[in-house]
This record gives sequence, structure tokens and C-alpha cells, in this order.
Amino acid sequence: MTRIVVIGGGSAGTGAATNAIQFDRSLDVTLITEFEDIAYSPCGIPYVFGRDIKNFDGLFLQPLEFYSEMGINLKTETVVEVIDMDKRAVYTTNGEEYPFDKLILCTGWEYEIPNLANVDLEGIIFIKNIRRAMEIDGRLDNVKQAVVWQAKPLGVELIEALPHRDIETHLVDSGSWLMSEFADADMMELLQNHLVNDLGVKMHFGTDLMGFSGEDGKLTSVQTSDGDIDADMAFLVAPMKPSTKLAKSIGIKTGSTGAIIVDNHMKTNVDEVYAAGACVETMHGLLDIPVNLIQGTYAYTQGRLAGVNVAGGDESYSPVYVPWALGSKVQVGGALISETLAKATGMPYIIGKAIGITAARYHPSVEPMHVKLLADPKSKKLIGGQLAGGEGVKERADFLAFAIRKETTLIELATMENVYSPPIGALVEPIAAAAKNALANI
Amino acid sequence: MTRIVVIGGGSAGTGAATNAIQFDRSLDVTLITEFEDIAYSPCGIPYVFGRDIKNFDGLFLQPLEFYSEMGINLKTETVVEVIDMDKRAVYTTNGEEYPFDKLILCTGWEYEIPNLANVDLEGIIFIKNIRRAMEIDGRLDNVKQAVVWQAKPLGVELIEALPHRDIETHLVDSGSWLMSEFADADMMELLQNHLVNDLGVKMHFGTDLMGFSGEDGKLTSVQTSDGDIDADMAFLVAPMKPSTKLAKSIGIKTGSTGAIIVDNHMKTNVDEVYAAGACVETMHGLLDIPVNLIQGTYAYTQGRLAGVNVAGGDESYSPVYVPWALGSKVQVGGALISETLAKATGMPYIIGKAIGITAARYHPSVEPMHVKLLADPKSKKLIGGQLAGGEGVKERADFLAFAIRKETTLIELATMENVYSPPIGALVEPIAAAAKNALANI
Repeated sequence: MTRIVVIGGGSAGTGAATNAIQFDRSLDVTLITEFEDIAYSPCGIPYVFGRDIKNFDGLFLQPLEFYSEMGINLKTETVVEVIDMDKRAVYTTNGEEYPFDKLILCTGWEYEIPNLANVDLEGIIFIKNIRRAMEIDGRLDNVKQAVVWQAKPLGVELIEALPHRDIETHLVDSGSWLMSEFADADMMELLQNHLVNDLGVKMHFGTDLMGFSGEDGKLTSVQTSDGDIDADMAFLVAPMKPSTKLAKSIGIKTGSTGAIIVDNHMKTNVDEVYAAGACVETMHGLLDIPVNLIQGTYAYTQGRLAGVNVAGGDESYSPVYVPWALGSKVQVGGALISETLAKATGMPYIIGKAIGITAARYHPSVEPMHVKLLADPKSKKLIGGQLAGGEGVKERADFLAFAIRKETTLIELATMENVYSPPIGALVEPIAAAAKNALANI
Repeated sequence: MTRIVVIGGGSAGTGAATNAIQFDRSLDVTLITEFEDIAYSPCGIPYVFGRDIKNFDGLFLQPLEFYSEMGINLKTETVVEVIDMDKRAVYTTNGEEYPFDKLILCTGWEYEIPNLANVDLEGIIFIKNIRRAMEIDGRLDNVKQAVVWQAKPLGVELIEALPHRDIETHLVDSGSWLMSEFADADMMELLQNHLVNDLGVKMHFGTDLMGFSGEDGKLTSVQTSDGDIDADMAFLVAPMKPSTKLAKSIGIKTGSTGAIIVDNHMKTNVDEVYAAGACVETMHGLLDIPVNLIQGTYAYTQGRLAGVNVAGGDESYSPVYVPWALGSKVQVGGALISETLAKATGMPYIIGKAIGITAARYHPSVEPMHVKLLADPKSKKLIGGQLAGGEGVKERADFLAFAIRKETTLIELATMENVYSPPIGALVEPIAAAAKNALANI
């Protein structure tokens, strides 16, 4: 009986274990996780904080018994200490041994804790584990002021959520606009205005995090380059890095992103060892460089593939184009390259912009849809796009990522057909309008 | 000075006239229409009837002066009687002469009035002209029972609208489900249930329209193969045919659809005569046969092209793939081929189906999204898709039409990337799930 050991119980680990055993019921599959739970959606945490979602129950995909009954040996609250490749076994901190024929590493990611004074004060939060998030949720009713550090996607979700709990919410970020690492200022304006004007978020851009002050071990204020901000709670969206300690201990190679290098079957350079999820790097289809994706949908898909392949399947992972989107009432999204990244990397580009609408201009459901497209100046092929509006951003972000993958030209986008139906679609699709604008600018 | 005469003031005619003069300000552009207005959106009429849209004002794109000030000679309520190709002039019923160097025919479409007893009774309505629709709207408050004949898209919009005015609404259709000419029964179920259960529409499928009864010249009941239905008003969504009388009078060729044949520059076979909109036929990219499209978005785009090209431009029209969608709370849509059409034409196909979701399963905004895909059994390329759900149908219909145009395979769809963000996107995109289902069925 072939023994499969999966280390990690997030989306990748769960995807790997369940798909391996579904592919071949005769496999002996063990999943080891340091946490109490597997297969929950951490992405939902900010939405419970904001009371969009009533409680944490829904965030669990299935109860643990579901996986046990499927035939998976589930070892929760179990930490792997050593992988012995000669003995083909993993050893846990509590002295257990799990022999394997094939190993799948789904060790995920961890925060880089900033090296600042008093970072261990009560009230300073790094969101990751759902049990910890449940405790925090219980305390939010008593929080009057909160600071969120860094306008990365999770940080933006938090500053959108916390005002719904009547918390005065401050954002501290060294950049000049939301998600300035990859998104463009002009396309973040709509969301930024919504957060400031409708939700009362205080933005501290161009501001460095310096440290923390406390009383009786509890946070009282956050020190920034722009002065102190009183706060009962601080959410630190610190840099996230792949967890590769175990992988490196057995000679697995990591790449330029710091994450594990895998082939398109999720195999590492070490025989019979696979890896998937936030601990691996993935080729970007357009940039042709590896990227490290820390997101459930990629983790699950890669985990599924690793599971199918260790079980004897033959599925390949394709290069990625990474559509993204977030927000509720006001949404932003897109697919790389942004103007910000094109400038930073010296990549040539032409731009098209349009402010379209999502329904007939005379229908009450109409909302603006801002579109910005980047194309290669020579081939006129799409290399990126960004969106800002209401409903329909996610679907258009998926469309743009797909269009980049299919090597779509501006002319093809300018002549794309679209549904015209007063309550749900305007005469002119905003993406087509932006493509026309780009062509007119040449 | 080059003289351009445009006959017709709908989307095509307006697009032609405005784009011609914008391309070359020195042109002498005359637009002749038999109606009082140009450039309004007849598609909005059912939504005013249903009070989604408060009044008719918004349906007009611009006041007539806007077009006059642009430099267009606007001749409303003027009927062209004769085109004299020797004299290069058009003659109107009121004896006016308009010489031209180039002519653009945007004569649109007309209803085939069914040859039934008493079809001229007051209360029997053919929706087309906006002024007439305004009069009808004023009378709707006194209508207790209405019959809508034929479950074509306009008919479906009407049966969705009328119940909002507290009108008992009956649909009479000889088919067995909504839009059975091109849509599949399984994909229309969601909308059909909504109309029956939520809006109380009475469906009379498999039922022929036989005639009308009246009193004092006013409709009192509609006769059907299934018995009489009391009605104060009957909306007849009769077959629509291209208006080609003028075109034929000067030797312009029409094709298999009965509409005018144009090349990809919107030129007819007669020198210096162009045509655009509902009176022309257009190549379908996948079927490679001509289709006659009666829809504002196509009319406007074709009119724009004709206008640019008569003015000295050089723009080509691409074959079409025709995404469609309708509905508000419950939406349906897609892009050809449906299973219904594949069966009717003997086209081979494989099918994939999925009921996906539009947000994280635990988020209150989550709604089902039904997807059905058809692909070619040999190449595995997408040949059609249908959708039923809430928000996001229009964008996915556009995506599917684009994917068919870009010759997308099921494997590419199954591996498409998607945004995962709890309020706006689920872990798995419903289209990808349907593609996986199709691949699993092979």
C-alpha cells in the first residue's frame, strides 16, 4: 500500500489529501497539521469582523470527521520536526513517526514579524489562524480605535470591515495609495474615496511604522513616522514569506522568490517529494518569471494537482496570469501588468482608459466601470488591465487574465461583442471602450 | 462638398450620420426618418412599463437640436418614396428631393403582422415606436389582464414588466419553454420558475394564437388553441423582418435571411450605397452562415462603421458570435450554439454542466450560477454556452462569446484562473467547473 504523507492542512494540503484518495482509494493518506482545523477559509475572516458574515461557522468547509470518513488519517495539532529521507519518514515533536513513499509539502506561509519595540503587546494582531480570529472577533466590540498596517489586499479588507463595528480605523502605509506595490493610483481612487468618505477611514500614507506603546502589557498607541496614533488594537499585515524550513532541510531548492521550485506536476527536485500552495513558486505566463502566490484558489488547485499526480495521475499546471479583485460596494481588480509595475521594470507600454457604465445609462441599476488597459506598443497585445466600479469587477478581471493568456490584441478587444440589455449591460462594454481609447492614442 | 444621405434614424442611422460628420466635418450629411425622433433606446420600453425606469425621458440619447448643432440636416417625419440612382437623389412622399453622392440605408425592421381576425382592435399592441409606447404606458394603469404573444426576448421582458403594474399577465407561445427557438429548456427553468412563482405569470405553452374578440372596437379577449383568455391588452411579439423595400427597388441584393448583403465595410452590391443595422445580414463567426441581428448594439456599431467608411475611413466589421442575456433579479444568457440548435442542425457536440456560485458559499451575497457548455467532440473547442443565475450573467455571456471567437478549448476553460474574494467570487469559477464536467464526461 502506497503511503502518502501531506504536511499542512490549508487549501493546498486539503486539496492534495482529498484528491489523492479520491483518485486512488487504496492509498494510505496521512495529513499532518500543527493547527486544530483543516480546510477553512481564512479569506472570510475580515468579513466576519465586518459582520457581513454572521459567524465563523460557515468558514469551515466540512467538519474534521468528513475527512476521516473519507479515509484520510488526520493528525491535527501535530508539528513535524524532522523529515528523514533515508528512512522515508517524518518525525513529529511529540515523537511520532509517519513513514511515506511520497511526500507532499503544503507548509504555507508565515509573517515576517517586524523587528519593532513592544511588538508582542496584547492587541497587536497578525491574522492567520481562525481560532485566534474568533477570540479577536469577541474583543472587537470593546475596541474604539484600531490601526491597520499596510494597504495590501488583507489590509484593505480590514479597513473596510472595522468601521462596520464602529471602530475608528487608521491605515498606516509607507506607499502613497492603496496596494501601491502593484496597483495604480488613478485606479485606486474610487475605493480610496469610498473608504475615507463613506466609512471614515483615516489614511496615513507615506508613513512608516515605528513601534508600539502599552500599559500593563496592552497596546495603547502605535508609533509612526507621522506621530502616535491611539489604538486598542493594531492589525499588522506584515510581509508574508513562504514556509520552507522543512523543505530546505532535505535539500529542496528554492527560487528567486524564496519559495520552493516545482515543475508543472508540482514535483520538487527531491525524488518523490511534491509541494503545493503558498510555499511554492509558480511561473507567470506573461512575465516569464516565477511568482509566489499566497491565495486559496491557487493553493487548492496546486494541491489538487499534487494529489492527483502522486496518486498516479498526470495533470500539468499552467503558467498563471493572476486576476485579482476585492471590495464589496466599491470594487477594484485587474490582472497584471499595471502601469506601476511597467514603469518599475522598464517594460514598454501603451495605455487606454475609459469610464464606462454597467447598465443602460437610464436604468437605476447603472454604475460606473473604470477601465485601464496596458498593451505592448509593438504587438498591441494586452499586457494588463485594472478595473474600478461596483458589480462586475470580478468577472471582468477574470476576462482580462484570460484575454492576456489568449494573446489578445487591442483590436480584438475594441471589437469584442457585448450583451446590451438595459438592467444589466450598456450599449458599449467598458473594456471595449478602453481598448478603443488605447488605439486612438497610438 | 460630398453629400451623404442616411435613411433611417435608429441606432444604425444615428451612428452612421454622427460618425460620418465627426470623421469629416466638411461632409454634407442628411438624415431622413419617418418618425418624430431619432436616437432613442426602444430596448428600454418594457422597463418603463415595469416602472424600473421612472419615465421615457431617459430613453432619448440627446435632444434633436444636439444633432442639428453637430451639423446634420435632420428631416424627421419624412418618408422616402423613391431612390433614383441615375439622378443620385432620394424623393420623399411630400415631394422633396435630396441629392447624394453616397447613400446609407438604415431602414431597420418591421413586424410581420399575423393574418388573424380583428388584429386591428384597439388594445392590440406592436411595440416599436417610442411615442406610441408612451401612450400605451398611460393606459396600463387601467389594464387588468394582458396577453403577451411569443416568448421571444422582448416578450420575456414584457411578461417580467407587466406584473409590476398589477396586471394579470398571460404568455401564449407555441413552443414548450421560454425562447425555445434558440435556448435550452433546462437553462430557462430558473427564469421560468421566477416568472410563474414570484410574479404570477400564467404560461400557455404549446398554444397557438388564433384571433381576437372585441367590443366597440376594443379588445376583450384573445383566442388561442387552448381557449379564450380575457384581455384588455395584447402585446404581439410578431416575427420581425428586415425592411428592404427601398433597397430592392434599386437592385440591392438580399441574402438567405431576407436582409441586405453587405461586405465587411458595410457596402452593398450597388456602387456608393451602404447599409447597416437591422436591415442587413451579418456573418456568424462559428456557423459561417449569415444572420440577421435586430439589436441596438449591432446596429450602432455597423452604423458607425458605415459612417466612418463613407467619410473616407477604412474600418472592417468582424464576424459575430452574439452574446445575449436578459432579466433582472433572475438572469439568463449565453452565446450560441445551444443544444436545441445543435440538435436541430445535426451538429455534433459534447456537454458540460455545473451549478456554481457567485461568491464564497458562506457570504450572504452568494447566488447560484448555472452553466452549460457545448464543445466540438473532436477539437474540444467551445461552440456555445448558456447561463442562468443572478448578477454576473451578462459578463459571463460576453466572456463565452469571446472565448468561442478565440477558439478556446475545454482544457483552457477548465484551467482558467479566477478571482477568489468572499463577497464577489467563489473558489471555483462556475464556467471552469462546467468545462471540467464536460472533460470528465468524455
